Amino acid sequence: MATLFLNKSDVRNLLNMAEVIKAVEQALRDCALGKAKMPPKAYLVLEQGDFRAMPGAIPGAAGMKWVNVHPQNQSLGLPTVMAIIIYNDPATGYPLAVLDGTDITAYRTGAASAIASKYLARKDSHTLGIVGAGRQSYTQLMAHGELFDLRQIKVFDRRAAAVETLIKSFSAYSIKASSLEETVDSDIVCTVTPAREPFLKSEWVRPGTHINAIGADAEGKEELDPSLLKKAMVMVDDLRQAAAAGEINVPVRNGLFKVEEVYATLSEIVIGKKQGRKDKKAITIFDSTGLAIEDIAVAKLVYDKASKAGGYLSLDFV
Amino acid sequence: MATLFLNKSDVRNLLNMAEVIKAVEQALRDCALGKAKMPPKAYLVLEQGDFRAMPGAIPGAAGMKWVNVHPQNQSLGLPTVMAIIIYNDPATGYPLAVLDGTDITAYRTGAASAIASKYLARKDSHTLGIVGAGRQSYTQLMAHGELFDLRQIKVFDRRAAAVETLIKSFSAYSIKASSLEETVDSDIVCTVTPAREPFLKSEWVRPGTHINAIGADAEGKEELDPSLLKKAMVMVDDLRQAAAAGEINVPVRNGLFKVEEVYATLSEIVIGKKQGRKDKKAITIFDSTGLAIEDIAVAKLVYDKASKAGGYLSLDFV
Repeated sequence: MATLFLNKSDVRNLLNMAEVIKAVEQALRDCALGKAKMPPKAYLVLEQGDFRAMPGAIPGAAGMKWVNVHPQNQSLGLPTVMAIIIYNDPATGYPLAVLDGTDITAYRTGAASAIASKYLARKDSHTLGIVGAGRQSYTQLMAHGELFDLRQIKVFDRRAAAVETLIKSFSAYSIKASSLEETVDSDIVCTVTPAREPFLKSEWVRPGTHINAIGADAEGKEELDPSLLKKAMVMVDDLRQAAAAGEINVPVRNGLFKVEEVYATLSEIVIGKKQGRKDKKAITIFDSTGLAIEDIAVAKLVYDKASKAGGYLSLDFV
Repeated sequence: MATLFLNKSDVRNLLNMAEVIKAVEQALRDCALGKAKMPPKAYLVLEQGDFRAMPGAIPGAAGMKWVNVHPQNQSLGLPTVMAIIIYNDPATGYPLAVLDGTDITAYRTGAASAIASKYLARKDSHTLGIVGAGRQSYTQLMAHGELFDLRQIKVFDRRAAAVETLIKSFSAYSIKASSLEETVDSDIVCTVTPAREPFLKSEWVRPGTHINAIGADAEGKEELDPSLLKKAMVMVDDLRQAAAAGEINVPVRNGLFKVEEVYATLSEIVIGKKQGRKDKKAITIFDSTGLAIEDIAVAKLVYDKASKAGGYLSLDFV
């Protein structure tokens, strides 16, 4: 037996968004059918940052992502978030692979959003608004590009250079640097910021819009005007995670929104247990916190491709 | 920046029991002084086995051990337990190393036992009894050999071949294959079995004995006659872990022993907050469940030696 080691560039070269979307959708299906396991994340909170252990299993695959968030890393020239995934054989526990998990995280987050948009956005959605032009915005765009005919993309970020870089990276698309309000005036809106104060005003959102609220991933983070939650259909990826650290966490704590008001989990919608968009005028919101089973599903995809291709670093490790 | 990869043989060659004992004792000290962090383990329980994520941090070091227990692996020629440790810089989260954690686990478990014996066994202890001659018994013997003048070692295991192999592996010591009752008639006794029924009878234990109860590490596991707990001073490494999965877990569940009857944690004794052995006739018991901070302390030791020595596999990984 041997363990495969796949670093950042190995993983990046093996990732394909269309395949990732399929793998993530299957993991959501497995989850709703009770075939997946995902214990709560374990948090290690230190002075300068924190770490999360995210264990998960789907049929045929098990493992764990260990990921840090150190906000001051940018000033040191290091990524804020770095992740390693240990990928195991569920039958024996053998560690089949150790993979860089940073791009896997970004890809699965983009994929989950696009899957939410597939079930919740209007079928005739052609405009995509992206608020926040950081690292996570790229995979939001890529994933939506796989599932939608995007005729116009609008991007807002206070950092003009970040918007410029994003636009240059996707030359095949028509992308326009826009104001925040213009960006929100889109069929599908993805919010991908580290905001701790709601910036997206309820009155800017036109009927029929679908919003993927991606940014909030820790207690105290919040992107949307909480009154928007009251007039929208709210979906989450995981109810416990969303209430603790997702877009709804602050409104739930403040008593402005109740956990019981969440309409469904995305996985319930994927298997048809709950209906997706019911009416053209509805505003729908997907509160994404990121699931360990999504990471494991993509790790399996990457591992399967790498072992089939051969030529990657393989060690007798444990 | 780069990540160091240390496989089983790298780690084994870098491990030194005297150094491990010092590092583990320092971690226990840090723990008692509130300088360590150790959130609860996250369990991923599957059909054929389970996995645990064990995050922890001590001053200057952070990380996580991911370890499986698959009881049926022996029939497949695979280890039952395999562990990988991700070792991080606490200040930036950078993954400094990925290490095989299997030997680190065995060494730190032996070290914790010997530290318990140092504070709890009689100073004139010269006989060591080991019940169970599996993998974990080797480091129990090695660690006690560092801290005690062992004139006689007795070993019991139903598998005579395992006893024979252990004896041959430690030719410098006087080791005798013994009956269970003879083995328990020792100054220090280490129980290192996967028992689910108490096998060590209270009446066999003479006054003044110290017992390290190592085997119980999951709900339902138990090695000692519960009446022994009532007449002994009981120490634990971690109260929450011990009550859930250590030697006291079954008696606590059955109402035969109360969590409040635990005298102290080992770390409280190490810093002198609680007194160790008070009287020559007392029976003392250390209920060991294994601490993430012990793993991280030893990972730091191994990492520091490896990076100083150089020549190990180093990759630009994340």
